[in-house]
Amino acid sequence: MFSSEDSLVERIAKSAKARSATNSRIRLGIGDDAALFSPTPGHDTVSSCDWFLEGSHFLREKHPPQAVGWKCLARALSDLAAMGAEPVYFLLNLGLPEQLTGRWFDGFLDGLMRAARRFGCRLAGGDTTRSEKMLIAVTVVGEVAKGRAMLRSGASPGDIIYVSGRLGEAQLGLEALLSKRPKRRWMGGALRKHCYPEPRIALGRQIAKSGLATAMMDLSDGLSTDLARLCASSGVGSRVDSRGLPLPRPSLGSSPDKPRLLALALHGGDDYELLFTVPPRRARRLPKMLAGVPLTAIGEVTRERRVCVLDGEGKPQQLLPGGWDPFRAGSKPTTST
Amino acid sequence: MFSSEDSLVERIAKSAKARSATNSRIRLGIGDDAALFSPTPGHDTVSSCDWFLEGSHFLREKHPPQAVGWKCLARALSDLAAMGAEPVYFLLNLGLPEQLTGRWFDGFLDGLMRAARRFGCRLAGGDTTRSEKMLIAVTVVGEVAKGRAMLRSGASPGDIIYVSGRLGEAQLGLEALLSKRPKRRWMGGALRKHCYPEPRIALGRQIAKSGLATAMMDLSDGLSTDLARLCASSGVGSRVDSRGLPLPRPSLGSSPDKPRLLALALHGGDDYELLFTVPPRRARRLPKMLAGVPLTAIGEVTRERRVCVLDGEGKPQQLLPGGWDPFRAGSKPTTST
Repeated sequence: MFSSEDSLVERIAKSAKARSATNSRIRLGIGDDAALFSPTPGHDTVSSCDWFLEGSHFLREKHPPQAVGWKCLARALSDLAAMGAEPVYFLLNLGLPEQLTGRWFDGFLDGLMRAARRFGCRLAGGDTTRSEKMLIAVTVVGEVAKGRAMLRSGASPGDIIYVSGRLGEAQLGLEALLSKRPKRRWMGGALRKHCYPEPRIALGRQIAKSGLATAMMDLSDGLSTDLARLCASSGVGSRVDSRGLPLPRPSLGSSPDKPRLLALALHGGDDYELLFTVPPRRARRLPKMLAGVPLTAIGEVTRERRVCVLDGEGKPQQLLPGGWDPFRAGSKPTTST
Repeated sequence: MFSSEDSLVERIAKSAKARSATNSRIRLGIGDDAALFSPTPGHDTVSSCDWFLEGSHFLREKHPPQAVGWKCLARALSDLAAMGAEPVYFLLNLGLPEQLTGRWFDGFLDGLMRAARRFGCRLAGGDTTRSEKMLIAVTVVGEVAKGRAMLRSGASPGDIIYVSGRLGEAQLGLEALLSKRPKRRWMGGALRKHCYPEPRIALGRQIAKSGLATAMMDLSDGLSTDLARLCASSGVGSRVDSRGLPLPRPSLGSSPDKPRLLALALHGGDDYELLFTVPPRRARRLPKMLAGVPLTAIGEVTRERRVCVLDGEGKPQQLLPGGWDPFRAGSKPTTST
């Protein structure tokens, strides 16, 4: 099938017009040299660009095109959630193999535009080219009230460490997707979490507004990797109690055993939950559930600059990053950690 | 050589800190979830994201890494120039093959940061991953006074069509780069234009400020392709006089013959000159040279919605898009048009 760049851009624009969120502050969408946006007075602009690459972040023959479309935007928006920002618009860069410009592409646009509407984010531009593998880069832009953005760098010794939701379920979902005989009984939720993650936008905004937290980031590469990053940014260490981690739900986890569930919670990537720190004196004002998402205290920030985990008997063990780093040999998403 | 994602990001951050432009309105750079920027009151934000892919936009064995670094940013900035905007910051997404993380990467960063400083644009974030081929996506963000952004859609019948600089030289440079025995006598300038393009930022801003032009865009895919896009956006047609086109400089073009130079000027891509339209009554206020760049009237906007070119005898011929479309079979940058 022959598709010129301009006709592909027209299909994207048509889909965006019909189905993406509307926003009067975006004064120019697709079809010009750049996107034009009128910032809200008294607000800062937050922007991030994320890769979503065939073979690294998804597999063409395993992931449905709707999931690829949804997830490429949802995971980029998770970076805005981590700053406490509200999404406004996004730019979509696509490298498309010729054979994916037909039905596959319709499915992709369907998932993408569903996510765009769900999270109130308008497609405002991008770049389309041909490539051998499917390449996606999504730039998301949002806003946050001046001075209210949550950074990684504000954690202090004594702060309590919290996570939202449950950890390791997305990794469980990935393994289910890759297994030859998926155990459907416990996999539905995990598969959904892997394929259609929900960035914690409302939660992130409420945490930022509340003024309770000192540092925040999202969990994309696994707790052990991302907590080390937050600690490095803040110049602190941390101690996580493995006995208090929100493991994958029992309904999903009836099959894997306890040590396996713990490894999933410590190292599994793609959860897109929020990780944040709260001083003890403010912690009592933090509800157990915020924006419909449960919050769990998992440990505390330490002066000593190392990240450790208390094992089943309460003994501290050093926690080494075991999440996904694309430059670490053998750490492809197709291998379990 | 083993390089983790975090250590690569550190090298990029160090290079950016030492050598990229500074800007107090960017409140958070690399190392957090997203970039944080305080917009200037009374201004709109202009943003664009461009691909720069090995095999499609550059060749690893032909293009020096410095040129890859310079050009990936320069061509993205050309989209801001086309809107009359001032660059502020950029996000850099890299997919790096393991074997390019050493010296090649240092050269790349060198060219990139030279362009960043030259065009006053600060590196504020991005995403780094591993890939088989070198993948680059650059998001640029700039500002323009509210209501002053130049769009593609404002051209009216009777407007005079202008281009900046000369057309076709970059394509000549590409061909020189790819030829086995480069004719060095006339190639230096063309090679430089292909490898180290200068986005017309100062010119674009002056045109936007002057209020003289009705529509503007940059020439990235060749005049025949881009003029058709401007006309489609404005709902008009155009007539270009081939006898008035600013062909590649004689010093560069002593070797190719006249019809070849004309084809280069009509269809050659990668020039990053500006294409804009000015009503005749305002045209006399337009100088022959602006921001150090010569301006040439090449034709006029017509009511009839087709793009045609007057040949050597002044006879109109339909001008079909012959520039670079990545989805048109055989139109890779390695083939001449």
